[in-house]
Amino acid sequence: MSLRIAILGLGLIGGSLGLALKQKGPENLHITGFDINESSCEEALRLGAIDRSCQSYEFLSECEIIFLCAPVLQIRKIAAEIRPFVKAGTIVTDVGSTKQYLQNELEPLFSEGVQFIGGHPMAGREMSGMLAAQSDLFENKWYILIRSDQQSEESLQKLAALIEYTGASVTYMNAADHDRYAAVISHLPHIASAGLVNMLNHYDDADSIIKLAGGGFRDTTRIASSNAHMWSDICLTNQEALIDCIKKYQLLLNELIQNIEQGNRDSIYDYFYQAKLRRDSMIDKVNN
Amino acid sequence: MSLRIAILGLGLIGGSLGLALKQKGPENLHITGFDINESSCEEALRLGAIDRSCQSYEFLSECEIIFLCAPVLQIRKIAAEIRPFVKAGTIVTDVGSTKQYLQNELEPLFSEGVQFIGGHPMAGREMSGMLAAQSDLFENKWYILIRSDQQSEESLQKLAALIEYTGASVTYMNAADHDRYAAVISHLPHIASAGLVNMLNHYDDADSIIKLAGGGFRDTTRIASSNAHMWSDICLTNQEALIDCIKKYQLLLNELIQNIEQGNRDSIYDYFYQAKLRRDSMIDKVNN
Repeated sequence: MSLRIAILGLGLIGGSLGLALKQKGPENLHITGFDINESSCEEALRLGAIDRSCQSYEFLSECEIIFLCAPVLQIRKIAAEIRPFVKAGTIVTDVGSTKQYLQNELEPLFSEGVQFIGGHPMAGREMSGMLAAQSDLFENKWYILIRSDQQSEESLQKLAALIEYTGASVTYMNAADHDRYAAVISHLPHIASAGLVNMLNHYDDADSIIKLAGGGFRDTTRIASSNAHMWSDICLTNQEALIDCIKKYQLLLNELIQNIEQGNRDSIYDYFYQAKLRRDSMIDKVNN
Repeated sequence: MSLRIAILGLGLIGGSLGLALKQKGPENLHITGFDINESSCEEALRLGAIDRSCQSYEFLSECEIIFLCAPVLQIRKIAAEIRPFVKAGTIVTDVGSTKQYLQNELEPLFSEGVQFIGGHPMAGREMSGMLAAQSDLFENKWYILIRSDQQSEESLQKLAALIEYTGASVTYMNAADHDRYAAVISHLPHIASAGLVNMLNHYDDADSIIKLAGGGFRDTTRIASSNAHMWSDICLTNQEALIDCIKKYQLLLNELIQNIEQGNRDSIYDYFYQAKLRRDSMIDKVNN
């Protein structure tokens, strides 16, 4: 008997998931893909990321696991649309960047026997879309599954077992911790990076300024080139943790301003030295 | 007749300057190197970055151009030490990261016929020291020379002509503009980057947080691994421009906080989208 699953959203993550599972997953796996963009469906079929594509949701009633692969606010919208087609016992999971918001929205939606399990694969590329998908995108990356008291252990294990075929390592967190951690290690860096670029709005003489730009500017602002819609959604669905985080960041900058004003070299040195020590000691453990 | 110059400080920049000028400079060029670290002198000699090394400053009286290649506050110290040995007509230049402070300190010191011309090559590597030096470090990079009303045009041209043998393109700024530009395009990014790492001091669960770290964190914090002494000096010698800059950055973060609090999606989107537009349009012009 085949294991039928669905991937809704055939972009970079959904497409890579399909490729990885078709190439390295169980032999009896059957994947149905759905995307509002018809050419993404065709590409996914052509590249072997899915077994078939569908343009309506009826097929979902025969799926055991449904992956929602879209930006956070889209996921909520899709979840509401598919709700009537999902039968009890199905596992619904997502790959969105913030987890508490989705748990709050989707868990009530999928009560009555449907198991909602939030997920977040720590994988990405600067390119997006099905054509950027890679079967090894998840290889040796963390794939976080969100625990909540509504889930059965059996469902969690079933989902984790399937995901591990991609080469990812599954680890577990609760939604609040995930969002608090993501705020400091991912969301704040994106905000800080975009802010560094937006600082240039204060200056008229961009051509001269650029002569002083080097690898430091290039690297710190690389993620300022990310998708603005995705990051708007993230800000709007992780408000509390993120605001707390930005405010702490500002306190830290305030302290540095004071130390610079007072010419307090020891404290300024400490600011840079502690950062260097910590960064050097942790960077080997960073994904990618 | 030979053109005799001196390089004081045989680290990454001084060493690379020597290598570049010996390999690609005029045939009659004679370079004397000086470094408090004797092994750096030996390496520089062995690698052909200098013609001879000296352990005292007497030789400076026969040099036409003297390069001070050290961190900013060291440059001031060395300048005071060498002053008695430098004869009228000599060009003294430096490679420090901030320029107004050095101009204020060194111009009065080198009055009476010595030409002080501040400089800043836009070249660097993450490694430091003579052994990291490369003859092509300046190739296709900007090399900024600081104009002031104390300089003769002839001295500026003489220095620029020598520097261009390295493959760098010489461009001119005044010290205040340089420091204001450097604050926003280089100093603030370093501060922001180190701050992102220091944010982790607020969290106990570093092992879990790291599972969420990816390429974005790695890149935005790469320069947090820089030399803490050098960056302390930079903060202390560019106080005014830098504090102004950090405060503008905080205003921009304040505005974002407000927009997140109010769920103002259009403004949040704008924050990320404007950054992406600007960054994508400028990044080809950034020095490596």
